[in-house]
Amino acid sequence: MEAELKSITGGTVTSPQGFLAGAVKAGIKGEAKLDLAILYSEKPCVAAGVFTTTSIKAAPVILSQKHLKEKKAQAVVVNSGSANACTGDSGMADAVEMAKLVSGKLELSAYDVLVASTGVIGVPLPMERISTGINKIALNKDGGHDLARAIMTTDTFPKEIAISVDSELGEFTIGGVAKGAGMIHPNMATMLCFLTTDAMVDAGFLQSALQKAVDASFNRITIDGDTSPSDTAVILANGLAQTKTINEGNGGLFQKALDEVCLYLAKCVARDGEGATKLIEVTIEGAVNETQACLAARTVASSPLLKAAIHGNDPNWGRAVAALGRSRVEVNEKKLEVYMNDVCVMKQGSPVPFDKHKMSTSLAGKEVSVRLCLNLGQGKAVAWGCDLSEEYVTINSDYTT
Amino acid sequence: MEAELKSITGGTVTSPQGFLAGAVKAGIKGEAKLDLAILYSEKPCVAAGVFTTTSIKAAPVILSQKHLKEKKAQAVVVNSGSANACTGDSGMADAVEMAKLVSGKLELSAYDVLVASTGVIGVPLPMERISTGINKIALNKDGGHDLARAIMTTDTFPKEIAISVDSELGEFTIGGVAKGAGMIHPNMATMLCFLTTDAMVDAGFLQSALQKAVDASFNRITIDGDTSPSDTAVILANGLAQTKTINEGNGGLFQKALDEVCLYLAKCVARDGEGATKLIEVTIEGAVNETQACLAARTVASSPLLKAAIHGNDPNWGRAVAALGRSRVEVNEKKLEVYMNDVCVMKQGSPVPFDKHKMSTSLAGKEVSVRLCLNLGQGKAVAWGCDLSEEYVTINSDYTT
Repeated sequence: MEAELKSITGGTVTSPQGFLAGAVKAGIKGEAKLDLAILYSEKPCVAAGVFTTTSIKAAPVILSQKHLKEKKAQAVVVNSGSANACTGDSGMADAVEMAKLVSGKLELSAYDVLVASTGVIGVPLPMERISTGINKIALNKDGGHDLARAIMTTDTFPKEIAISVDSELGEFTIGGVAKGAGMIHPNMATMLCFLTTDAMVDAGFLQSALQKAVDASFNRITIDGDTSPSDTAVILANGLAQTKTINEGNGGLFQKALDEVCLYLAKCVARDGEGATKLIEVTIEGAVNETQACLAARTVASSPLLKAAIHGNDPNWGRAVAALGRSRVEVNEKKLEVYMNDVCVMKQGSPVPFDKHKMSTSLAGKEVSVRLCLNLGQGKAVAWGCDLSEEYVTINSDYTT
Repeated sequence: MEAELKSITGGTVTSPQGFLAGAVKAGIKGEAKLDLAILYSEKPCVAAGVFTTTSIKAAPVILSQKHLKEKKAQAVVVNSGSANACTGDSGMADAVEMAKLVSGKLELSAYDVLVASTGVIGVPLPMERISTGINKIALNKDGGHDLARAIMTTDTFPKEIAISVDSELGEFTIGGVAKGAGMIHPNMATMLCFLTTDAMVDAGFLQSALQKAVDASFNRITIDGDTSPSDTAVILANGLAQTKTINEGNGGLFQKALDEVCLYLAKCVARDGEGATKLIEVTIEGAVNETQACLAARTVASSPLLKAAIHGNDPNWGRAVAALGRSRVEVNEKKLEVYMNDVCVMKQGSPVPFDKHKMSTSLAGKEVSVRLCLNLGQGKAVAWGCDLSEEYVTINSDYTT
């Protein structure tokens, strides 16, 4: 990390000044777990968001996109347990009602409230429980931790971070939380991610900075190749740190800090893929350009066969090469080099003998790297995924029953 | 099936006149199983093939494509246990040697021998065992059954069929065998499929008929979204049934029979996906055109989340809709209807209540149908896949170790 950036111990989405949050067990999940939360800024915020690009969008995504047209927001309400997707007109009415309930509670315009829902698709929200729950939520400065838990579905740990930045424009903080676990193959967006900052940020720059950070983080992870209709990443900037206005011209350090926050959260999501036991980092070097490198990295990281092999500590590198082959990027097999955990297993298109036992032991670690050098150009990209375990299937074979 | 087509009990790739085959346990797999086979026609054949479209092609694929340039062939040699892919120049030399050994044994030109290999990627072929094995292979009329077994890798049953055709152009037979199991998401080709016929067929028509049959069968199945560098489907036509020459103008019935043979084999492959316990048939109706319908059907059939849900008899239809959403085909959610095993679960974009227990019992059958009606146009397509089980992961987590 840059010298000017400092990770805050125990940092979360409410670490920046003026942000509060709270969560309750509203009973949406049908078990005694936090499942409904509000994130709130004491001051109106400049806001930006990126959302799922699939053609079937959840009602809260459509509503939040509409509310973000003015590039401002002051609160986010989010539930887990139901995605409020494929729920028709009544699903949209429910999302609108959630925003209204929060606007009433916090005395805001409903347009300043963003809405997000995650969980089962095609199940209506239990609006009575949500209404009662919203009433009960108490906002406080430490509430980010509860919010991070309340948005979890099959996640096994909360994902939260905050970084303080000592910049020429003033000191400020960026915080964030995310949830992932399944249906993760982001495309122009991610699962759920809420970001906050007390910096003063130009609205146009905030949107482009978020898009850039998401492209290099959430858009580089894959769990199972399925894309969620609920993908949402939003950032709220309230300016309470009284920095100079950060914009395209002076925003380099802000961008770096935002990139760090998003990358940390994205890697948490990859590591915590449903049933995952390790993080897989796929690096493509020497592609003809960065776009091709990125496509290749994502394709290799998403190969179920490679993921299953790595789960079993099996150095079956041919599966990485097969996935590269189907990625449609330019490849000259005779120039190809492949490394697993930095051991060369293929060079100039031919297998290189290696100690299988030693490699298998090395693959048993918590992080596995697969590196493919195409030796055709300067294109480089990294993507992150996780191993595919029996547990992934078990989790997903009785999700609604 | 058309009245003129008749399935032959116990039919296989050697059912058409003049085709012989044989297989041996050459020890390539390191276990006492058939793993090396030859298919042979007593008469030179007109031949056609379709092959993997990935950029990393196995050596036998490159060689067979070269040998097929003259649109003729008389024998196929195939091994399981090693795919001879990512094996560099020595891999290509091994493929050439396999063709030479068979041409010597059968007194043919090496150019009339096609080669196929399936198994682990990146492992050189044990050429001494292959040489000894080829010497030992005895060809006979019933040999198709042994060949069907010799090409199996993680397949749990041999896939073979023959159909006799009573046509105005004369009586003839089409036979075929295939292997699948994993790394199955064909694109312009399939895993391994060998087809034979004793009809007299025009070479140009044979190629287009094969392509058409493959498009509607092997190109409609998916197991895990991974594409193999070894995908090969070839057909040999020896003319021994003394039909009139079948061509574009009179080949309707031939096409139908070939379609039937390929569809049967493709569905066998889908049903026998690694770890699979059931066949999933995904039908898209009312897409704006057939191309979009096909893309949507393949995307839905390949969703790991839907496949895992169906494995657990969980009617989590939202996952089918989410996969449709990410398929990039034109969808109007408000017009969408979804059926699982012919029970409507979503209509006009809203969930339709159904008896979950009854549905779950129905999903426990050996075949599950998922139908999505887009109500936008006339485009219709069917794709086949299988459920995703813990066993898929277990099989693939220790394939080489």
